[in-house]
Amino acid sequence: MPDNTLSNPLGTGVIPPLVTPWTDDQRLDEAGLERLIESLINGGVHGLFVLGTTGEGPALPMTARRQIVSRCVAVADGRVPVLVGATDSCVESVFDLADHSAAAGAAAVVVAPPPYSPLDIPELNHYLDHLSERLPLPMFLYNIPSRTGPVPMASVRHALSLPDCIGFKDSSGSMIYLHEALQLRDELRPEFRVLVGPEELLAESVLFGADGGVAGGANLFPELFVEIYEAAKRKDIDTAIRLHRTIIRFSTTLYRSGQHPSSFIKAVKRGLTVRGICHGNMVNPYEAFNTRDTQRVDQLIREADTWVNQALQS
Amino acid sequence: MPDNTLSNPLGTGVIPPLVTPWTDDQRLDEAGLERLIESLINGGVHGLFVLGTTGEGPALPMTARRQIVSRCVAVADGRVPVLVGATDSCVESVFDLADHSAAAGAAAVVVAPPPYSPLDIPELNHYLDHLSERLPLPMFLYNIPSRTGPVPMASVRHALSLPDCIGFKDSSGSMIYLHEALQLRDELRPEFRVLVGPEELLAESVLFGADGGVAGGANLFPELFVEIYEAAKRKDIDTAIRLHRTIIRFSTTLYRSGQHPSSFIKAVKRGLTVRGICHGNMVNPYEAFNTRDTQRVDQLIREADTWVNQALQS
Amino acid sequence: MPDNTLSNPLGTGVIPPLVTPWTDDQRLDEAGLERLIESLINGGVHGLFVLGTTGEGPALPMTARRQIVSRCVAVADGRVPVLVGATDSCVESVFDLADHSAAAGAAAVVVAPPPYSPLDIPELNHYLDHLSERLPLPMFLYNIPSRTGPVPMASVRHALSLPDCIGFKDSSGSMIYLHEALQLRDELRPEFRVLVGPEELLAESVLFGADGGVAGGANLFPELFVEIYEAAKRKDIDTAIRLHRTIIRFSTTLYRSGQHPSSFIKAVKRGLTVRGICHGNMVNPYEAFNTRDTQRVDQLIREADTWVNQALQS
Amino acid sequence: MPDNTLSNPLGTGVIPPLVTPWTDDQRLDEAGLERLIESLINGGVHGLFVLGTTGEGPALPMTARRQIVSRCVAVADGRVPVLVGATDSCVESVFDLADHSAAAGAAAVVVAPPPYSPLDIPELNHYLDHLSERLPLPMFLYNIPSRTGPVPMASVRHALSLPDCIGFKDSSGSMIYLHEALQLRDELRPEFRVLVGPEELLAESVLFGADGGVAGGANLFPELFVEIYEAAKRKDIDTAIRLHRTIIRFSTTLYRSGQHPSSFIKAVKRGLTVRGICHGNMVNPYEAFNTRDTQRVDQLIREADTWVNQALQS
Repeated sequence: MPDNTLSNPLGTGVIPPLVTPWTDDQRLDEAGLERLIESLINGGVHGLFVLGTTGEGPALPMTARRQIVSRCVAVADGRVPVLVGATDSCVESVFDLADHSAAAGAAAVVVAPPPYSPLDIPELNHYLDHLSERLPLPMFLYNIPSRTGPVPMASVRHALSLPDCIGFKDSSGSMIYLHEALQLRDELRPEFRVLVGPEELLAESVLFGADGGVAGGANLFPELFVEIYEAAKRKDIDTAIRLHRTIIRFSTTLYRSGQHPSSFIKAVKRGLTVRGICHGNMVNPYEAFNTRDTQRVDQLIREADTWVNQALQS
Repeated sequence: MPDNTLSNPLGTGVIPPLVTPWTDDQRLDEAGLERLIESLINGGVHGLFVLGTTGEGPALPMTARRQIVSRCVAVADGRVPVLVGATDSCVESVFDLADHSAAAGAAAVVVAPPPYSPLDIPELNHYLDHLSERLPLPMFLYNIPSRTGPVPMASVRHALSLPDCIGFKDSSGSMIYLHEALQLRDELRPEFRVLVGPEELLAESVLFGADGGVAGGANLFPELFVEIYEAAKRKDIDTAIRLHRTIIRFSTTLYRSGQHPSSFIKAVKRGLTVRGICHGNMVNPYEAFNTRDTQRVDQLIREADTWVNQALQS
Repeated sequence: MPDNTLSNPLGTGVIPPLVTPWTDDQRLDEAGLERLIESLINGGVHGLFVLGTTGEGPALPMTARRQIVSRCVAVADGRVPVLVGATDSCVESVFDLADHSAAAGAAAVVVAPPPYSPLDIPELNHYLDHLSERLPLPMFLYNIPSRTGPVPMASVRHALSLPDCIGFKDSSGSMIYLHEALQLRDELRPEFRVLVGPEELLAESVLFGADGGVAGGANLFPELFVEIYEAAKRKDIDTAIRLHRTIIRFSTTLYRSGQHPSSFIKAVKRGLTVRGICHGNMVNPYEAFNTRDTQRVDQLIREADTWVNQALQS
Repeated sequence: MPDNTLSNPLGTGVIPPLVTPWTDDQRLDEAGLERLIESLINGGVHGLFVLGTTGEGPALPMTARRQIVSRCVAVADGRVPVLVGATDSCVESVFDLADHSAAAGAAAVVVAPPPYSPLDIPELNHYLDHLSERLPLPMFLYNIPSRTGPVPMASVRHALSLPDCIGFKDSSGSMIYLHEALQLRDELRPEFRVLVGPEELLAESVLFGADGGVAGGANLFPELFVEIYEAAKRKDIDTAIRLHRTIIRFSTTLYRSGQHPSSFIKAVKRGLTVRGICHGNMVNPYEAFNTRDTQRVDQLIREADTWVNQALQS
């Protein structure tokens, strides 16, 4: 059994953003969620992140969000920490979900700027102050410019000054931006955790100082991502690059199976369905793949399995 | 007393996007909301639009949203129709709010694509189908690219084919886009309502065929906007342009009093506070103006009053 | 014969951006250029603008640019003023072309910020100072954000302070921006000329105070655009809107015949070829339409002729 | 003396984009150019790239461009290959400059899509065909989205099929994009050279398979960049990261000394002036730093020297 907890403190390692197993009639597939969590923990991941972008968090009804947090914490049962995506356009909902997460036993919340309401730098910094004071759990600041506008570096710096803000998750896709954040971290607060979003950047981010990654593909291939992380951590550059190439192959094939921009989530959910792990319907208003896209993604998943097996065995 | 209802059917005329009167302790200022509604109806507006972008709708707790709808319909009391902004990242919340609005007696809902979850064209069209079937009220499609990504013209065309979708509100700021939507409307369904968002474009939009506008400045100066609309409607181009110039003066001074991008809402709320109409605090996480900005905006509001009086009397 | 010059001073009216007649072997079609100029002057236009974006100016060798200026001024022969697009990534080339234009007898140059080299506001204002001092002809500042980045309003304001800068051409497509520029013009220097680029915005721009437009479609249909301009100028709103609708029909059909983003220029050049006015090859590196696109555009041009005739006769 | 040529074939290693030494009266500082070249070759660089974005290539008069190519080839005298930036909005100018470069003895040209004239994918691929057939020298395709729009991956794939196109320079700043290009290269044509633009990405790009980098900061600190490249090449990750951190310090301080977006070039030119290597005036229309910015950058250059010395000696 993997010793996930021992070696990796909160905010380090591979922390997959769990997809939300979802039924035809738009309800949580609880049994599927449990199988997914077991699959991930068995795969060696170091934490679980629910209700993120990959988890379609902001699209879920609040009752389903609470249910997912409770189930996830219960199933994880202390084996790995659970992080909760609490981003919402309504600040009250952020607090509600954070309170529920604290009561359920989650380890931290992850919060991006409010969708729909762009903030300038002083407003965003004030929001971080407010979160920091009010939240019952440690917090990660979350940068996902495509969804909520960019987090300026001045606000990353501000987050570094807030003791209750313990880390930063960057899904900008820009390594230049990430390098600057890492530099600030090194100067100001070395124990602050920096996690990278896009899995295509996991290997180099960890090599250059990030603490881990929130890799969506780890829903399907947890061992692969754990291997990459471990290789990068121990600076085994040859292994890291060899495995990294497998990710780039997913990224340029499997994740583009269907129509933009949700095809990544759809492909991962379809892959989990094919494996019998969970129901992979999309949360409203996303549609599932059409038949032709489904056939294509099924074929690509079979190929991906082959690539991963080859990569892990070589 | 203005005959707002008689002359202007649903989805025509000036339909201000009401700001949300809000207290220091982050609660609805009910008395302020009532005064605001009376001020607008006395000013001659043809409808009321609550919970839009100007109303900070997606930032409000669901209980406050419901309360605002109920109060607004009750106070309007059939004098003008009430439209409800029901955009939310969670489709269930859109339905909840629409159901509440129907029960309360609102006339229609206004829905943009879901924030946070970008949809491609087939997905957006499918979402419109779903809304159209499920919503208990007529619907306006809402295009606000800066917040939820652009609504492609193919989806405007799709909306024109859905009987329960009775109109389109365009806040893109692009007259080329709006002209194309108006052309489609003229060809396919002349009774479909097209409303323009930015008040700087109200005069020309109505001259060229739009049915009205959702002008934020009408919170402060309802008569001015009603006059512009009426002048454009009767093709009194000299009056329309003269009054339009006053709006451009607001737009380049008053609405830029503070820090971007919420300074427009803040300036309008401050103006209503100065006039004693309502509490003008911002909904979390926005901050109010700082002292220097407040002094500046107070001065600009006094000047704006002078401009408006001069424009209306000449 | 139209009295183009008498009634319309420099920088007013319809000033088509001439396409560059171009042969199969990538040379200027001089006879075609002459026929195009005669067609436009006969159509009643109030000026000629060569080497703009529609004229593929920055893609032309400098010798061809000089040749076009000389021929155009000679053929126009004082009947209408000639404006020359002198935008270039190299300032020396801007000066060379302006010197040649002055010697040839052109009336003014039109200059955008340098492509490839984004300038901040102080740099752009300094560039305008430099142009203003050095250029031998009056100058129009040119805003075409899609090609050279946006001209900030602070630089429009600066241009208004420079006596040798006599006007501003705005191809931003934003009427909000244009209204602000018109307001500045009215306040600071009423004789400063403001021209609008996109033909879809010609009618409303002139109604609201612009001095004219640089309408690409006027290459094909000069009378139509002159009629729109004249109608808007005399505030004949019904005529202006009726004709404007024809433009929107072009914009949504003919101009989208082929592949983005050069399909507008290609469609206009193809139309002129079909009419026997000039060779319509594209300047390198653009390709001409493929056969299927050509057949489609030919059909659309025939339809457009019908629309224009109907619109002008009703 | 460094054995630059022996160990590094064309399109590998550190190939600085030379700034253009330029006098107060807007002329080439030939002696400065010679000193700069000697400084770079002594610093161990593996090639020289003139007339790129950092070299203000498209802003230079054609005579100055030719002069720079000739001088650079003459001074380099076979010690390292010279690459020439030939991007221009006019294709004829691209050919002229390439012909001159071939005659002068340059090794290759580097060409981006034409500024000012956005091409769609078939047009861009056709342009690459045309370049490939017509150019007298091997060519690198150049991706610099901020200046000429993005090169789609389909065009990188096309470039890989053209024997006379021997490499690709990517200044997109996106490692995800670069990883995809590297994957295509590995699959289709392993000897095709891939160079990275932003120096902040040099270390990881080379680690993950890029052949080298066009690092602007190498104008000032050639040894540092050569060391990073060599360390990354031999997979000495600790050294690569240690030196990489120095670059991030430049990037977040020195390169932001003045006003955006030319402050990087200005800072490098100022640094070379301070060292007595060359005149560091900007080519028109850029302005030099103001006095306050100059003082600040002078201080930062002194600090940068210290960082570099510490990094190279540790």
